[in-house]
Amino acid sequence: MKRIGVFTSGGDAPGMNAAVRSVVRTAIYNKVEVIGIQRGYAGLINKEFVPMNSNSVANILHRGGTVLKTSRSMAYKTEEGRKVAYQNLVEQGIDGLICIGGDGSYTGAMKLYEEHGIPCVGVPGTIDNDIYGTDVTIGFDTAINTAMEAIDRIRDTAESHNRTFFVEVMGRHTGFIALQVGLAGGAGSIFVPETQNPETWIDDVFSPERRKRTFTIIVVAEGDEDGGAINMMTKAKNKYPELEPRVAILGHIQRGGNPTAADRILATRLGNGAVEALLAGAFNQAAGLVKNDIVFTPFAEAISQKKSLNRDLYRLIQILNV
Amino acid sequence: MKRIGVFTSGGDAPGMNAAVRSVVRTAIYNKVEVIGIQRGYAGLINKEFVPMNSNSVANILHRGGTVLKTSRSMAYKTEEGRKVAYQNLVEQGIDGLICIGGDGSYTGAMKLYEEHGIPCVGVPGTIDNDIYGTDVTIGFDTAINTAMEAIDRIRDTAESHNRTFFVEVMGRHTGFIALQVGLAGGAGSIFVPETQNPETWIDDVFSPERRKRTFTIIVVAEGDEDGGAINMMTKAKNKYPELEPRVAILGHIQRGGNPTAADRILATRLGNGAVEALLAGAFNQAAGLVKNDIVFTPFAEAISQKKSLNRDLYRLIQILNV
Amino acid sequence: MKRIGVFTSGGDAPGMNAAVRSVVRTAIYNKVEVIGIQRGYAGLINKEFVPMNSNSVANILHRGGTVLKTSRSMAYKTEEGRKVAYQNLVEQGIDGLICIGGDGSYTGAMKLYEEHGIPCVGVPGTIDNDIYGTDVTIGFDTAINTAMEAIDRIRDTAESHNRTFFVEVMGRHTGFIALQVGLAGGAGSIFVPETQNPETWIDDVFSPERRKRTFTIIVVAEGDEDGGAINMMTKAKNKYPELEPRVAILGHIQRGGNPTAADRILATRLGNGAVEALLAGAFNQAAGLVKNDIVFTPFAEAISQKKSLNRDLYRLIQILNV
Amino acid sequence: MKRIGVFTSGGDAPGMNAAVRSVVRTAIYNKVEVIGIQRGYAGLINKEFVPMNSNSVANILHRGGTVLKTSRSMAYKTEEGRKVAYQNLVEQGIDGLICIGGDGSYTGAMKLYEEHGIPCVGVPGTIDNDIYGTDVTIGFDTAINTAMEAIDRIRDTAESHNRTFFVEVMGRHTGFIALQVGLAGGAGSIFVPETQNPETWIDDVFSPERRKRTFTIIVVAEGDEDGGAINMMTKAKNKYPELEPRVAILGHIQRGGNPTAADRILATRLGNGAVEALLAGAFNQAAGLVKNDIVFTPFAEAISQKKSLNRDLYRLIQILNV
Repeated sequence: MKRIGVFTSGGDAPGMNAAVRSVVRTAIYNKVEVIGIQRGYAGLINKEFVPMNSNSVANILHRGGTVLKTSRSMAYKTEEGRKVAYQNLVEQGIDGLICIGGDGSYTGAMKLYEEHGIPCVGVPGTIDNDIYGTDVTIGFDTAINTAMEAIDRIRDTAESHNRTFFVEVMGRHTGFIALQVGLAGGAGSIFVPETQNPETWIDDVFSPERRKRTFTIIVVAEGDEDGGAINMMTKAKNKYPELEPRVAILGHIQRGGNPTAADRILATRLGNGAVEALLAGAFNQAAGLVKNDIVFTPFAEAISQKKSLNRDLYRLIQILNV
Repeated sequence: MKRIGVFTSGGDAPGMNAAVRSVVRTAIYNKVEVIGIQRGYAGLINKEFVPMNSNSVANILHRGGTVLKTSRSMAYKTEEGRKVAYQNLVEQGIDGLICIGGDGSYTGAMKLYEEHGIPCVGVPGTIDNDIYGTDVTIGFDTAINTAMEAIDRIRDTAESHNRTFFVEVMGRHTGFIALQVGLAGGAGSIFVPETQNPETWIDDVFSPERRKRTFTIIVVAEGDEDGGAINMMTKAKNKYPELEPRVAILGHIQRGGNPTAADRILATRLGNGAVEALLAGAFNQAAGLVKNDIVFTPFAEAISQKKSLNRDLYRLIQILNV
Repeated sequence: MKRIGVFTSGGDAPGMNAAVRSVVRTAIYNKVEVIGIQRGYAGLINKEFVPMNSNSVANILHRGGTVLKTSRSMAYKTEEGRKVAYQNLVEQGIDGLICIGGDGSYTGAMKLYEEHGIPCVGVPGTIDNDIYGTDVTIGFDTAINTAMEAIDRIRDTAESHNRTFFVEVMGRHTGFIALQVGLAGGAGSIFVPETQNPETWIDDVFSPERRKRTFTIIVVAEGDEDGGAINMMTKAKNKYPELEPRVAILGHIQRGGNPTAADRILATRLGNGAVEALLAGAFNQAAGLVKNDIVFTPFAEAISQKKSLNRDLYRLIQILNV
Repeated sequence: MKRIGVFTSGGDAPGMNAAVRSVVRTAIYNKVEVIGIQRGYAGLINKEFVPMNSNSVANILHRGGTVLKTSRSMAYKTEEGRKVAYQNLVEQGIDGLICIGGDGSYTGAMKLYEEHGIPCVGVPGTIDNDIYGTDVTIGFDTAINTAMEAIDRIRDTAESHNRTFFVEVMGRHTGFIALQVGLAGGAGSIFVPETQNPETWIDDVFSPERRKRTFTIIVVAEGDEDGGAINMMTKAKNKYPELEPRVAILGHIQRGGNPTAADRILATRLGNGAVEALLAGAFNQAAGLVKNDIVFTPFAEAISQKKSLNRDLYRLIQILNV
């Protein structure tokens, strides 16, 4: 391979820039040219190509977001769209791709290989941690630290007013963020999409023992089946109006910010590993970190399999609220 | 005076603990005893008194919230309630009070003086900065830094996706937080309750020039007459559906957290000044910082007057978005 | 077992409080009483015992340092000292111990078992990460994030002035902190005790290619054989006086601060695992996290074995500075 | 005026970028062109000119350091050097200058006006706060918050080990940083260059009452006459070897980092005011903030006068350590 392309796709995640930097420099180290493709698959179709050298990625390691930008592309979802993308790649002389993103991004890469034979290796970048084939995704550690620090702030108010707070964190389909943030934030209860809430949840949360405590933080994943923090707060308030619970929805602040050390190192390792795999001819798969080792999972498997919550962590919540 | 009481009242604010520490130690330095009254006026009625010495306030300078707790008291709003409070103070041998809080807290203190002759000096503690008689209130600097850091995070996503964000900050009746946060966060527009939004605001925000920029942050005070960030975003989206603006409501995270240096120093100075004034017989008034000097404003004036926004700062927004 | 004791020992580390909380609550969950022993082995000898319940560890999860305090004890290093400690434990009815600390703490615990049969399980708490039997120690993640954020600040000055900085991080005998901080901080070179610096290191660092860059951050472990950052800076300056390199020694700030999410969760898991092992009769060993699983290593092995640096990470530094 | 130049000079300070942004956009708003001059006076001589538009300063408001870079220039200190600078300005068609920096930078600007009639307005940018004509300089608030957060971290260790720490902060000739950081960090004593230390300082610091406390933080300005933190710690240790005091020298971390809200707003206001003054023909002076109002002080006065420490703040230290 002589020239590869790199792009970020899907929601932005802290550490994506560290991954881009690692991809670019690993390629250069291996005497391979790199083209940055802006705005993900949209840029592939619209020819937003930028040649990159070592200096292009100087001083981005510590920045949140993605300097290559990202977007959703409806055009790429069509066969004609992907054909245009392919022709642009040929025109640019790009022999292979590194795709930094999530499930949807992997699907796009897989189709490009199946239809046009362009090899690609994926790097898992999303704060949600919901990608199979890696214990952690790039951006997850930063997101849980950001959410935890928000809870540390909310704790000051909760404690000063003896109040219960329902804090909603990101996670439409999975509870990875809620579980880790809940544990790290000292939550009294955690509600996640993976687990059916007991019918008695209000009374569990506001049991006589619990109400003797000065305050409680309840962490709720946005995709929980009881409808997120506002709905749960309303239900609780209807049953126990004297408690005056409050709600905080953390929202988009969880997505940005300078990446943590763990995310920078993870992104650096996976970006490096992905390029080395691509150059070695091992493509149509995604890099990941499993039990501290870099591993690769075929795109088809990464997309179709679902990663489970760590039940051991979930069990700890009950013990810690004795 | 031989023994004074100190309490925090109303919403908690970062720096209240620094004020309590300064009150306690200034009193002790002047050979006066101090009683901490917990949960504000409620504790005054329910006899939640705690003797305090220098060690009671060790290691709280840097903590958010209030170690004396705070609450709202319906009972104190009645004449009988205030009579009970008075009798408890007499029973405890408390000759004077330091009240750390906002307008409502000042009103309560004024009534106690009018009805029962208990002298009190106020210390302005609220993140909203909406107290007359002081350029800044305790907690304001921390709140604007917290909100600004949240915007710094949101900026990463806004920039990566070329998106407009409506960010809602606290301020039901005033735009102090919105104005400073908007300036510090590089907002494209700021909407505050003090100013009538022009009918053309959507087109101002999304003018052709502005849309050429990669992204825009709009800061909205929750009390703005167009109904807060969600309503404004919806109106904007209806007119320009292709823009896909997003909303972030910062909420309670603005209220907590370790106080900034400015808030710790302000709280220390005002707590000290308030006790010295009380001991010198200058009470029924609130301490404040005006043009860097400690000044005192009668409660009646502090409550009835309204502090204005700094128009010079407001004017800068337009210049900076050229 | 009916009653266990818990203490922290050696240098303090962020997350120790989270471990104490987890130990106390896991014990109570299992109907076992817990006594807190203050100031480590010194408190064992001086009878500094404090009964603990669930509330004793409320609101400490997010605090740095250790609420149980820590110290070095010369008395405990003698056989008579340990006999006194043993007698105090018998007097208190303490059947087993949880020791949170490093190698030296494990050695003390092992001797107490060998000489007096008191069972103990260890929890690895130290920012240095130099304990065998666990991939990471409690406090390490916080320390590297703190040091990395310091480097992010130094980078602003280095870049503004086009300057080289030698940044010294903790690590008298090991380069764990230096390696991770260097990678996360974008260091140009990393010098650690485990690796012999090449004789040509000055010219490697200040090669013509490197000098074309706007600035460089060099990360040095305090125990590096060239004598730490000041010595290395002086040597470099003598050879290239026109470069005006600067030094920053991060020092004690690396040891404190609120623990990160990873440290809180790690401490919670290991504290829980240690108590469950102790109650199950599996003692004289230390808990650890290896490849994401909780494992136990006999004290004798944990003390005598040396954990190696991850060579894959070390190798990346060269690639990333292409 | 049709075209102005802007540059940063001297040590970098957080908020310099916010000032540059405000200068550029205020000029454009007034239909005046702006040229960025890189690396301060050195760039003036070496023709490092960059035309700037509104977009050149997008997304720099929140960044530490200075995008225009800074340096010291020996050449500019000579008359010939300044003549070259003048000729370059004429060549570029630059009619006036905005200089962001400290005393030395003002001196350079004053000479350029005296010798060649180039008008300049100064903006005070330095973390040291040692500029006459403004209550606060750009970067000071960020620096004290950074140093205070470092002390918050050190406090964890000091408290856990019952130890005294000597913390050295920046300030070769003035104690502004030490005084504010000491107050905000809860220091037991503060040593500054402006005040002669009493001969009894060691016994004051380690009085029997003080030693009953669990720990003490001593804040020392680097320019204190007893020789900085290491010397003071050594003297204290020689007298009271059993106390094992520790030292932390904060160093360069105080200079960098994202600016606080106060610094961003201050820089924005002063940058705006400086350009408006320059365009109005009021030059050879520096902008400043005195008692919350923007004022201007002639360069000659700003350079020759010395700003005093706030004695009221100094007095508080004693009261707060009762």
